[in-house]
Amino acid sequence: MGRTIAELAPEFGFQVAAALEVGDDLAAGIEAGGETIIDFSFHETTAEVISHAVRFGKALIIGTTGHSIDARASLLKEAAKVPCVWAGNYSVGVNLLNALTQRAAAVLSDDYDAEVVEMHHRFKKDAPSGTAARLLEIILAARGLGPEALRHGREGIPGERTRTEVGIHALRGGDVVGDHTVIFAALGERLELTHKASDRAIFARGALRAAQWIRGKRPGVYDMQDVLGLSEPNGNTAAMSGHSSSR
Amino acid sequence: MGRTIAELAPEFGFQVAAALEVGDDLAAGIEAGGETIIDFSFHETTAEVISHAVRFGKALIIGTTGHSIDARASLLKEAAKVPCVWAGNYSVGVNLLNALTQRAAAVLSDDYDAEVVEMHHRFKKDAPSGTAARLLEIILAARGLGPEALRHGREGIPGERTRTEVGIHALRGGDVVGDHTVIFAALGERLELTHKASDRAIFARGALRAAQWIRGKRPGVYDMQDVLGLSEPNGNTAAMSGHSSSR
Amino acid sequence: MGRTIAELAPEFGFQVAAALEVGDDLAAGIEAGGETIIDFSFHETTAEVISHAVRFGKALIIGTTGHSIDARASLLKEAAKVPCVWAGNYSVGVNLLNALTQRAAAVLSDDYDAEVVEMHHRFKKDAPSGTAARLLEIILAARGLGPEALRHGREGIPGERTRTEVGIHALRGGDVVGDHTVIFAALGERLELTHKASDRAIFARGALRAAQWIRGKRPGVYDMQDVLGLSEPNGNTAAMSGHSSSR
Amino acid sequence: MGRTIAELAPEFGFQVAAALEVGDDLAAGIEAGGETIIDFSFHETTAEVISHAVRFGKALIIGTTGHSIDARASLLKEAAKVPCVWAGNYSVGVNLLNALTQRAAAVLSDDYDAEVVEMHHRFKKDAPSGTAARLLEIILAARGLGPEALRHGREGIPGERTRTEVGIHALRGGDVVGDHTVIFAALGERLELTHKASDRAIFARGALRAAQWIRGKRPGVYDMQDVLGLSEPNGNTAAMSGHSSSR
Repeated sequence: MGRTIAELAPEFGFQVAAALEVGDDLAAGIEAGGETIIDFSFHETTAEVISHAVRFGKALIIGTTGHSIDARASLLKEAAKVPCVWAGNYSVGVNLLNALTQRAAAVLSDDYDAEVVEMHHRFKKDAPSGTAARLLEIILAARGLGPEALRHGREGIPGERTRTEVGIHALRGGDVVGDHTVIFAALGERLELTHKASDRAIFARGALRAAQWIRGKRPGVYDMQDVLGLSEPNGNTAAMSGHSSSR
Repeated sequence: MGRTIAELAPEFGFQVAAALEVGDDLAAGIEAGGETIIDFSFHETTAEVISHAVRFGKALIIGTTGHSIDARASLLKEAAKVPCVWAGNYSVGVNLLNALTQRAAAVLSDDYDAEVVEMHHRFKKDAPSGTAARLLEIILAARGLGPEALRHGREGIPGERTRTEVGIHALRGGDVVGDHTVIFAALGERLELTHKASDRAIFARGALRAAQWIRGKRPGVYDMQDVLGLSEPNGNTAAMSGHSSSR
Repeated sequence: MGRTIAELAPEFGFQVAAALEVGDDLAAGIEAGGETIIDFSFHETTAEVISHAVRFGKALIIGTTGHSIDARASLLKEAAKVPCVWAGNYSVGVNLLNALTQRAAAVLSDDYDAEVVEMHHRFKKDAPSGTAARLLEIILAARGLGPEALRHGREGIPGERTRTEVGIHALRGGDVVGDHTVIFAALGERLELTHKASDRAIFARGALRAAQWIRGKRPGVYDMQDVLGLSEPNGNTAAMSGHSSSR
Repeated sequence: MGRTIAELAPEFGFQVAAALEVGDDLAAGIEAGGETIIDFSFHETTAEVISHAVRFGKALIIGTTGHSIDARASLLKEAAKVPCVWAGNYSVGVNLLNALTQRAAAVLSDDYDAEVVEMHHRFKKDAPSGTAARLLEIILAARGLGPEALRHGREGIPGERTRTEVGIHALRGGDVVGDHTVIFAALGERLELTHKASDRAIFARGALRAAQWIRGKRPGVYDMQDVLGLSEPNGNTAAMSGHSSSR
């Protein structure tokens, strides 16, 4: 991922001042580095990256996941001392799909049956994907439903579909990078929102777009909804982004 | 259409007080009718329908199209004296697709190639559909492009795709009620927004939803974006709905 | 169904000689009827319909399902005394989808991961659909797999996909008449075969097409694969159609 | 392409005896090479490659295109002296799509409106793609139509769709490797056959599959329909493959 970001950086008007790997002297690298630090390493390293960024006054783009809730809370507090973007998924398209799904779920009553379909390559071990899980969270929240509403696989005589279920279908096959579709189906019409990833470079591009956006921003932790201008005025987005921010 | 609305009305909590056809005594019918008048007749009748609705203080739902620009302007002025919804398409799903397309086009730069694909039954005589034309308007407006940017059919050696074109593809076949897909394709990802109509009753349902919504509203002309809560705070929606409103 | 067949009959050059309902005098009706009897009634009636057709030397089109295996075997033996088409699904498109799926499954090794996705309206009580079950049978047979290979719903950490599983996903929502997609996904490519029904009249049309085809055929039980010219010379189709034929 | 073939060869049980580039001593390389020569170079080189293969008794897999009709005819004659596979597209999936499209077009009358949709990356200069052109050829041949039946782009008031037209729609955008869909749409149902390429390595895999298949075959020119066992007994495939073969 680091390599891809470095390759694409010039396209976004950036020069790579330093490319650091685990084991390098982070303090020296970050001090010597440019005005913005992009971190896609491991969750064990995040605390150190943040601490150096704060010390040397650098903006931060964090794409690392896997922190515990407690660890994350204290990291967010520290990161908020500099301008920082922290997101679970840096793809512009996936973040936009999240926002459009939220909007659709807010407008459409439960007379629109919601189903999520995702397809990934045969090597993926978990199901559904994290991105599908996020889409489901958004739909469940909009409808005031809990995770027990999810319906994984219908078989035999499940009976008529209820309004209080949301179907989730995880297809696996070939080398599919990642397809996600949200379906809202009523009597007479269907709305389908689909994202298809064909290259993991979109995550690098998203991080670089965040790095462009963060320039000149006030300290605080932002997410990709902010970068993309997708934040709802009524604050729904904050709930959506899954973490509290210091704004 | 009138018949379908009458059939579905009880589902929305309405009683049909009067079902008027062209040639009936509109004044008597509208006076005797309930609190809301739904008009899906002909454009020649609209002026009379509005004038009686204003006289008897009824709310109005207008689904008639085909007025000249001048006629429409004066009709809107008159209709604004009562609470009125006037929309070109009453389908909830299509209006939502319009709003989501506008949002997506606003977020995604022209590095996302936009193409619109629609499919309709073999009997349709015009191309592209009015709904596709509206989607194209939204995309062109978001990108500051004029209608010359539309690309109908690629054949031979058109050369590499440019950023300043928007493809439109009108498929025809069978008895397809109406499918519309907006594609935004970049390097590494695609976003596809699709609406599929399976029953023309969705237009009746949309009109009835509008009739529910208009109760207790202040006089003025609203559109389905208002009914569905899709209006953008920055006023983009007004531009979107294609007509000025009196609010 | 009977009504739809009667309405569409003239389109296929037929006149309806008699339209019989349960409770009518079948013997008299069938004797008085034209040269071909189309039966879409109930499985309890099939024996009587066949017996009269044989007595009066009429060709038969049978669309009734729900017979026990034993009952079916003896009915087939009797029906083979006249020219008879007996199929589980009379849609031309679904039968063609079956044949194309069989061909694809024969050509593609299990390096092509197979998944079946179907969507039906919210009122459907069973899952997967009978049509999807038939598609799965075809794929399992081509790969020498048993029904334990079917994978209904992936959830949690199912691990990497194996070559010996076939995914099946039953979406439910709105008023979808019936969509079926068979996916074969390998490294580098996907083949997807899709059928979308929009009107149940296709079953009536298929039965009428069978009635056209049966004219002048020798006695014996045929299926829609025969009618459509889809039978494979190597006899695979007989296995496909799920019943022995008397040819 | 040569590089990809060399990388994937071991997967198919092959050793690469020699990897030749334009400018190398072809005679020496082909003599020293293994039992099968795979040629994906330029059309100017084909004659020399064939002549050396014939001299040294090697089997041939040819993926080169761009020869004139006359040149091709004499090359085929020469190539038929050894076992040779010569195909315009070595993807297993595309060849299967061709065969399934031919089968569907043979079964479905022109009451099934045919439309072809393809999508490729923004850099592609020609439209429609060669693969789409082949699919159109198959449909036109099955219906006895000439190239004037093709309909590129519908705009304005084209009127109701006729039975004697076949729509072709070339979408361009992003980095799409190649999607092709053939649609047959009638009243009540649609059949859609789709191929999605995600990696150009499928062409290398197809060529290697052909190299496995050619072992022990008698001299003659075969195509991928033969390799994949897709040839129809009635000789339709020969017409389909677009060239005469010496079998």
